[in-house]
Amino acid sequence: MTITPESDWLDQVHWDDRGLVCAIAQDAQTGRVLMVAWMNREALMKTVQMQQAVYFSRSRNRLWHKGEESGHTQHVEEIRLDCDGDVILLKVVQQGGIACHTGRESCMYQRLEQDHAGHKWVSVDPVLKDPALVYAGYDSTSQKP
Amino acid sequence: MTITPESDWLDQVHWDDRGLVCAIAQDAQTGRVLMVAWMNREALMKTVQMQQAVYFSRSRNRLWHKGEESGHTQHVEEIRLDCDGDVILLKVVQQGGIACHTGRESCMYQRLEQDHAGHKWVSVDPVLKDPALVYAGYDSTSQKP
Repeated sequence: MTITPESDWLDQVHWDDRGLVCAIAQDAQTGRVLMVAWMNREALMKTVQMQQAVYFSRSRNRLWHKGEESGHTQHVEEIRLDCDGDVILLKVVQQGGIACHTGRESCMYQRLEQDHAGHKWVSVDPVLKDPALVYAGYDSTSQKP
Repeated sequence: MTITPESDWLDQVHWDDRGLVCAIAQDAQTGRVLMVAWMNREALMKTVQMQQAVYFSRSRNRLWHKGEESGHTQHVEEIRLDCDGDVILLKVVQQGGIACHTGRESCMYQRLEQDHAGHKWVSVDPVLKDPALVYAGYDSTSQKP
């Protein structure tokens, strides 16, 4: 009898030389790409356990439970892996409708446009909430998801 | 009088230490995430010039005009940059409806599922065309987009 170790699915992810994999969060309803972050093995395990997105913050060098400061957690409905095993796609319900630290729905808010002077990146999506309020206004003791 | 150099928009991308940025191709109509690849500065310039996705292949260490072998080019309708400047989002029309080298619509075809034995990645999307035919059957001289 062959027993499949529960960690097989984690071993099938192609972690890079830093032990990370690229993770895309996509709105489960609208299909909008909300953000891209990184996961290590522990982040992916915790994401599955909690059914909420947990990333690995490269700048802070620690696990980052998305929404831990803002309250803007991501409930994970589905997890996919790409053909090469090096990209994770999360289909999420975005708490508060704001994924970006700038207070916008999505981090992908700069569109390449062209005018007589050439190309430029233009911010085309509205700020839904002042980022100062996003972080100052969240009381994690009363608003835990 | 200030003249904005045409390369400013390229300098605003946060190229990593390899000179690369992560690029997501998303179906412009359905919103489906099709694939993730990498771009260097030249790849992004060519993508804008051609209005077709051009990536940088890390394995082949050269520019990769998506579809150059398969005919499955990606017509680019919109290009976005994220808040950190290190992710590009392309909204594309996928020629042939197949983005993946496995002959599937999207590279994100493995879904994490759980049964009594634990978690596993399950291929849940159909192969639309035998990959052998995808690459053998394309005559670039007659089918140039």
